Amino acid sequence: MEDLQSKAISGRMWTTVSALTEELKDHTVLIRGRVQTIRALGKNMTFFTVREKGYAVQCVLVAPGIVSSQMVKYAMTITKESFVDIEGVVKVPPQAIKETSQQVEVQVRKIYCVNRAAAILPINVEDASRSEAQIEKSLETGEKFVRVNQDTRLNYRILDLRTPANQAIYRLECQVSNLFRQYLLDEDFIEIYTPKLTAGTSEGGAAVFKLDYKKQPACLAQSPQLHKQMAICGDFGRVFIVGPVFRAEDSYTHRHLCEFTGLDIEMEIKEHYSEVMDVVDRLFVNMFDELNERCKKELEAIGKQYPFTPLKYLRETLRLTFEEGIQMLKDAGIEVDPLGDLNTESERILGKLVLEKYGTEFYILHRYPLAVRPFYTMPCPDNALYSNSFDVFIRGEEIISGAQRVHIPELLEARATACGIDVKTISSYIDSFRYGAPPHGGIGTGCDALLWP
Amino acid sequence: MEDLQSKAISGRMWTTVSALTEELKDHTVLIRGRVQTIRALGKNMTFFTVREKGYAVQCVLVAPGIVSSQMVKYAMTITKESFVDIEGVVKVPPQAIKETSQQVEVQVRKIYCVNRAAAILPINVEDASRSEAQIEKSLETGEKFVRVNQDTRLNYRILDLRTPANQAIYRLECQVSNLFRQYLLDEDFIEIYTPKLTAGTSEGGAAVFKLDYKKQPACLAQSPQLHKQMAICGDFGRVFIVGPVFRAEDSYTHRHLCEFTGLDIEMEIKEHYSEVMDVVDRLFVNMFDELNERCKKELEAIGKQYPFTPLKYLRETLRLTFEEGIQMLKDAGIEVDPLGDLNTESERILGKLVLEKYGTEFYILHRYPLAVRPFYTMPCPDNALYSNSFDVFIRGEEIISGAQRVHIPELLEARATACGIDVKTISSYIDSFRYGAPPHGGIGTGCDALLWP
Repeated sequence: MEDLQSKAISGRMWTTVSALTEELKDHTVLIRGRVQTIRALGKNMTFFTVREKGYAVQCVLVAPGIVSSQMVKYAMTITKESFVDIEGVVKVPPQAIKETSQQVEVQVRKIYCVNRAAAILPINVEDASRSEAQIEKSLETGEKFVRVNQDTRLNYRILDLRTPANQAIYRLECQVSNLFRQYLLDEDFIEIYTPKLTAGTSEGGAAVFKLDYKKQPACLAQSPQLHKQMAICGDFGRVFIVGPVFRAEDSYTHRHLCEFTGLDIEMEIKEHYSEVMDVVDRLFVNMFDELNERCKKELEAIGKQYPFTPLKYLRETLRLTFEEGIQMLKDAGIEVDPLGDLNTESERILGKLVLEKYGTEFYILHRYPLAVRPFYTMPCPDNALYSNSFDVFIRGEEIISGAQRVHIPELLEARATACGIDVKTISSYIDSFRYGAPPHGGIGTGCDALLWP
Repeated sequence: MEDLQSKAISGRMWTTVSALTEELKDHTVLIRGRVQTIRALGKNMTFFTVREKGYAVQCVLVAPGIVSSQMVKYAMTITKESFVDIEGVVKVPPQAIKETSQQVEVQVRKIYCVNRAAAILPINVEDASRSEAQIEKSLETGEKFVRVNQDTRLNYRILDLRTPANQAIYRLECQVSNLFRQYLLDEDFIEIYTPKLTAGTSEGGAAVFKLDYKKQPACLAQSPQLHKQMAICGDFGRVFIVGPVFRAEDSYTHRHLCEFTGLDIEMEIKEHYSEVMDVVDRLFVNMFDELNERCKKELEAIGKQYPFTPLKYLRETLRLTFEEGIQMLKDAGIEVDPLGDLNTESERILGKLVLEKYGTEFYILHRYPLAVRPFYTMPCPDNALYSNSFDVFIRGEEIISGAQRVHIPELLEARATACGIDVKTISSYIDSFRYGAPPHGGIGTGCDALLWP
């Protein structure tokens, strides 16, 4: 116990499991990881799979000679998912090792159990890591792999997070927000932190979480929409926000969550809302390129459990007007309301049509009907039935919503009233446009939204 | 109006006010900014100060000859804080311009009012930008600058944000979280997003915001403490979080806020909690170095309104034990409880003593008494009255709290119970240590905390 309480600093050097490659052949290494499986081969030989952050290596104890028989006996008592420190020599086995990510083996010299896991675990990480195809195949061969169902995974999330696919998904999510942020910082945006506790409702909608703020009614922000626009009135020019947003809606699709990490952008525009689409275009093409480049290992780990094909996208993102989209649907025999919103089904079909015609699964649809957009959306100058707005689609699913905003307080009041919003509840927002406001626009999306498709 | 509704894309090139330097002498430029002041010199000459993101430039209209008399007349009707587009030629005046950040002048050829601010503004940005010293001095000279008090600033925050100092503070805050993040990503940490809506209380404390989550009691996370430790049990190895935390406490000092942006780190440790202090040391020394380097203009803008001296810090951060700190206070004639916490006053005095003796305003005090630390803090191996924990101080104020955590479920239960916490309310947290947990530790601080001193 005392050993684990910061008793000593030995200065020993550690190697990560992911770094164990042929280059370290015959080197003595010290690793710390979890015991994923233990397999005895008689009394004097034991194989361990040791895992660290989703990477796994085979370790072998051989007695007598290399280690003592007692050590093999002791090692056999270690429970799965326990943390062990292993000192050993890296060897390259003659044939490929199917069960582990690393293709070398560690010949164990010393083994020490740092922390012992409970003997009975609700989830076996090896089981939880298998793909549906592997499980199906095992039923045919009679091997019958255990299927870990979703409820069990959620009830024991800590264990399920340890699978290579989940490790990779979190690393990918981290890179998504990092690439988003770095691109925007390079483009002279600044990151701001907007309040999540607000008075009134954040967008005038109904589905908010209400709470008591020192005996005053308050609610959780559904989006940083109003605050990021106010930051533009506060002269920041170009801002973005990465942070939680809260929606008290019941969840019926994979596209709705009560709490998720929102990615928001707002920027001054000089002349045209296409300036916002330009940023979206360059930002996301850069993000896809970089994810493919930086996250090869992670994409491979996810693909092993959940097979997918790479996203098709163009160097310059396709832009279609809403009317052009409606026409494509019409030409394919699908009639939709030309001034209504697209439903999930027609979005999906349009995605297919666009893929066939233009060869891309990522595109922008703009000039949406005004009636289906929020009150703060700028109408088109040539036709007030349409608006300076757009949605971005990946694989037939809308993932980003953007628009030019109304920056003229009188028009904003009129639009809010027309949409049934009491302007008194958003007076500080509307007032911020009275002290001089630039034309501006922006987008909102979610970290998870980008990973779904 | 239609002009501001994305009517056309002209392809004109824009120059930012901050980019207006002598290098652009005699060039024709197009700028967009706010009219900060207007000053007529007779009927045919008008000076404007045009501001963009805290930078200001002098613009001059001269009629007849360069522009028409009508244009000068029109320009005089533009209200302060309105947005204008100005096309003009950059000139270098013979003497320095005191009132603006830029030392060139724009000789106006065309002026267009993009958006007109209300004629009467509650705050004059020029007034709000002045330092206390300037205001005091003006009282002596009889010029009597207007003092904008704090209530007015907060009531019209959008206007107050436009001062050069506030523009710089937000850019600095953006860089603080960016440097924090980049350093940790380079050190193999991953950024995660923990839930802000939680069941039960997040640390067992009392001051939480409660709310109704679909008819179940829920609360806002006071910190990501329990979740970030659970992420360590989920094999992420090294994680950090930048996000809002909520404390329903009444605010009596500048060190307490109901909602602030927390910066949190959690990491596996191999042997000793000093590994966490090592990360803190390198991270913050790097952050101070980079802020001084990257944010020269911003630090200068803040210093003009709120004068400050640069922070004194060592290349390798000083570490003192709590006992050594107590002894320094004792030697200076100040008696404090050797097993209690330091109060604000004794922290301040210790800060002075450390500065005198070691020449640094940034240091770490570690091995705190166990009784004054949270239940999840690991006791010292050699003396259970002390703990493997530390605080970090800037200018006599504690800004970071860190520690090794208890990763053994039985000890964790015992410590929680001893601290009066019902272990049932944190069972999912305690259970996560039953499936194998590595020794680990971390820190918590706030984005604002780092900017206060």
